[in-house]
Amino acid sequence: MLTRDEVNRRQQQSLDLFNQAGIVITPAEKERIEIADFGLGDFERTGLGVLIYVNTQRVCAKELAMLPRQTCPEHRHPTVGGRPGKEETFRCRWGEVYLYLPGDASQHRHSNPPAGRESTYTVWREVVLKPGDQYTLSPDTLHWFQSGAQGAVVSEFSSTSTDEADVFTDPDIQRFTRIVV
Amino acid sequence: MLTRDEVNRRQQQSLDLFNQAGIVITPAEKERIEIADFGLGDFERTGLGVLIYVNTQRVCAKELAMLPRQTCPEHRHPTVGGRPGKEETFRCRWGEVYLYLPGDASQHRHSNPPAGRESTYTVWREVVLKPGDQYTLSPDTLHWFQSGAQGAVVSEFSSTSTDEADVFTDPDIQRFTRIVV
Repeated sequence: MLTRDEVNRRQQQSLDLFNQAGIVITPAEKERIEIADFGLGDFERTGLGVLIYVNTQRVCAKELAMLPRQTCPEHRHPTVGGRPGKEETFRCRWGEVYLYLPGDASQHRHSNPPAGRESTYTVWREVVLKPGDQYTLSPDTLHWFQSGAQGAVVSEFSSTSTDEADVFTDPDIQRFTRIVV
Repeated sequence: MLTRDEVNRRQQQSLDLFNQAGIVITPAEKERIEIADFGLGDFERTGLGVLIYVNTQRVCAKELAMLPRQTCPEHRHPTVGGRPGKEETFRCRWGEVYLYLPGDASQHRHSNPPAGRESTYTVWREVVLKPGDQYTLSPDTLHWFQSGAQGAVVSEFSSTSTDEADVFTDPDIQRFTRIVV
């Protein structure tokens, strides 16, 4: 749950991150940045700023802004009504991001889940993405990611985004941020 | 038709444009930049540099690098074998780009087709894209575009790219560049 003032402040932080990455967005787009706190009310640890450039019946492109050491919590994009789940590519533009996937746990991880919520994280194979690096996930693959010490800007190229269909490991998560007016 | 040396030189120019736009690509990606001259052998006027980030069965994302006043010639993405033609969004990242589409001809256009090839251009409704501006084309829509005086960097988000299916208005065009070794 966020106040309108907090949303405005967080949108400005996302804009600052985009600027750091050399990414130009319009004033109207700034107002559209989604400040996602996943219903946990702990945005600085679990959350991210999301700007959807385009989301049609076929294609979606987003820009993600992450504060330092911020986590997008573990989830997957399942098949819904016979339509294959979202396939997505993450491309790091600025900062660093650590992506976690099913498979053998990496021995020396760069990040840990947000304290107190460790039990809602289950995949531990780490892929490090620095600027210019990218990774494509198959549909329905469990994943979570955390930014490095500077934060990160990540482009996401994907099939149609249907965030309401996402399945989170953490039962306390609600995908859509409630804004108090 | 391009020599390997010219391809290398043009790839460096594309990289310089990406750097101008703050876009980081890897050394391996630089080597993969397609120098598209559309078979006309006049790259500085008709051509562009294309870096495909990802092109799966569902989604494609590219970065386009355009020298000053360079033109991507008129074409469309038709339905092939029952599969709807490519739907694409162009987002200007740096410089300026002038996109031409079917509809009422714009009275004051910012660009003209390359001299000598005017007869192979047929659509004249102009959309100006500056950094942060974008436009989504429906499948099978005729379009061409030209960069402004500085050149341009444009991100393209689309459904699967099948360049070999593109239909160009200019019968002399061959989509794939021939490189002489």
